[in-house]
Amino acid sequence: MRTTVGWQADGTAGTLRRAPLDRRDLRPDDLAVRVDYCGVCHTDLHALDGDRTSPLVPGHEFTGTVTETGTAVTRFSAGDTVAVGNIIDSCGDCTMCRAGQENFCRAFPTLTYGGTDRRDGTATLGAFSREFVLRDRFAHPLPAGLDPAAAAPLLCAGVTVWEPLRTLGVGPGSRVAVAGLGGLGHLAVKLAVALGADTSVISRSPGKADDARRLGAREFVPSTDPARMAEARDRFDVVIDTISSPHDLGPYLRLVAMDGTLSHLGHLGPVTVETMDLLVGRKRLSAAGSGGLPATAAMLDFCAAEGVAAEIELLPSARVNEALDRLRRNDVRYRFVLDMSDLD
Amino acid sequence: MRTTVGWQADGTAGTLRRAPLDRRDLRPDDLAVRVDYCGVCHTDLHALDGDRTSPLVPGHEFTGTVTETGTAVTRFSAGDTVAVGNIIDSCGDCTMCRAGQENFCRAFPTLTYGGTDRRDGTATLGAFSREFVLRDRFAHPLPAGLDPAAAAPLLCAGVTVWEPLRTLGVGPGSRVAVAGLGGLGHLAVKLAVALGADTSVISRSPGKADDARRLGAREFVPSTDPARMAEARDRFDVVIDTISSPHDLGPYLRLVAMDGTLSHLGHLGPVTVETMDLLVGRKRLSAAGSGGLPATAAMLDFCAAEGVAAEIELLPSARVNEALDRLRRNDVRYRFVLDMSDLD
Repeated sequence: MRTTVGWQADGTAGTLRRAPLDRRDLRPDDLAVRVDYCGVCHTDLHALDGDRTSPLVPGHEFTGTVTETGTAVTRFSAGDTVAVGNIIDSCGDCTMCRAGQENFCRAFPTLTYGGTDRRDGTATLGAFSREFVLRDRFAHPLPAGLDPAAAAPLLCAGVTVWEPLRTLGVGPGSRVAVAGLGGLGHLAVKLAVALGADTSVISRSPGKADDARRLGAREFVPSTDPARMAEARDRFDVVIDTISSPHDLGPYLRLVAMDGTLSHLGHLGPVTVETMDLLVGRKRLSAAGSGGLPATAAMLDFCAAEGVAAEIELLPSARVNEALDRLRRNDVRYRFVLDMSDLD
Repeated sequence: MRTTVGWQADGTAGTLRRAPLDRRDLRPDDLAVRVDYCGVCHTDLHALDGDRTSPLVPGHEFTGTVTETGTAVTRFSAGDTVAVGNIIDSCGDCTMCRAGQENFCRAFPTLTYGGTDRRDGTATLGAFSREFVLRDRFAHPLPAGLDPAAAAPLLCAGVTVWEPLRTLGVGPGSRVAVAGLGGLGHLAVKLAVALGADTSVISRSPGKADDARRLGAREFVPSTDPARMAEARDRFDVVIDTISSPHDLGPYLRLVAMDGTLSHLGHLGPVTVETMDLLVGRKRLSAAGSGGLPATAAMLDFCAAEGVAAEIELLPSARVNEALDRLRRNDVRYRFVLDMSDLD
């Protein structure tokens, strides 16, 4: 067994404390990675708030440096910079895995934290820690030119918005609206703009209008202004809804153009829509969350080529509880990333 | 004013009584049509059960014979057989009308019954009557070869299933499942089969298995059999859900293949879906109901060419209350059509 140190739930109100952690000894196809940077995702909050009994260690979008490789690993060597997202294994045999959609693995993918290792049955502990051990197949080489800190959020937030943009065929000429300008939303704007789409932002925070334009959006629509929302009706081929709290989808469906799609990815759980909001204009509702290995690799290559990465606030990992508190209040522009070097 | 006779709500529990009705004098662009056959639609039940105070006359899928034309009408002459659906006017100016989607008219289309005439403000009375007067633009010539009685349900049920089948690109090689084998469902099966799709039926009524195969379905999946439903998981590019009562969409979304669509058209109102049922497999939810004039005309031409029409039970119009009662119990294979000649 290897030992490292990380930030673990302490069983009280959604806070983390520094704790020693075990990592498995390397299997032949394993990598040991020194975690350099890990993004703070809304999922981390949900996990912390939902389960206070398990030995939870959050963190599932990280970059780091390979320190050791298993005997069968050929893709990576010590010193390589790698990037890892929210899944670290899958069955490899089902139709979804064979199609490169390991995130939809029929036997359920192994989550980076809060999951169960497929071989030894242990609970997976996330990347708010200094070392991580995983199958090499689920690590991506970080393309040259991407800043490792700003790239970390691409591994969850980035691929989560990339998947619907690509699946829905967004490209030059597409009219895209991004609802919610947070961790997911700001990457959706940057990626949609880089894909050539005519991109708008819908937000309840008028103070984000300047940021929206700086990120490349052509228009900012305050969702609190009924007249502006009415003007925007039926105007977008794709609306990417990144709002992280439960909300009425109706106002966003009404922005979708004939035969367009509302892609909902801000939160999980049941959503209710009025049939008429779908019917009139033949609109479609979809949902997205994370992506498979090929899509993640393609997204990283695209980001490197186009110079896209997250806008981050980098904090020493010891300030993780402050980051979580501020994320709860949506007080971040636009993603916290923890620098793990203070764990040494 | 012209007078005719029809079947009008009598203010009590969802029944109709024979009553004299007024029709307007012909405007220059009007047709007077002798209604020969009118289908009985679930919407008629909803209207009857929902509103017992207005002078409701149901009926919005009919065929008939032109008896008189306004002075400006050139498309039709007395003696022509015509077909009319659930809308009889629209603004003609909005983006939807200009796109041939009069059913989505931004100023709201004029419904065949329960609507308000755009010029004189009178309430529209439906086609459970011997004569109907409408703008010629909203009548279709009935293509040769279609039986006028069996064709009547095409004007509402037919175009309602045609729209999603065409919009979702159903054709040879498509894998289509139709959930619910009733008035809409049986036409969805016939049209999907005629379009070349590999078509299956999902139904809670095992007694409909033989009918499903006779209509051209390759497979019948009883929705009450969890093992059969599990086998059918992720198998269909398009699932057309025609179930007319509120129901859980989850079991039907789970039948949709990766990147496929569940088109919901059985009933109106709010529907709730689990985000995960959309997310896993990148599935889409859409809804459909009726169609525009060009789609309706194309559907009629297709049906004439392919020999598609409704399977009907033809009743004298005096038995309309019996038809409504049996429709409430889903006791019809597969659409009641009223023969209006008994109103003379």
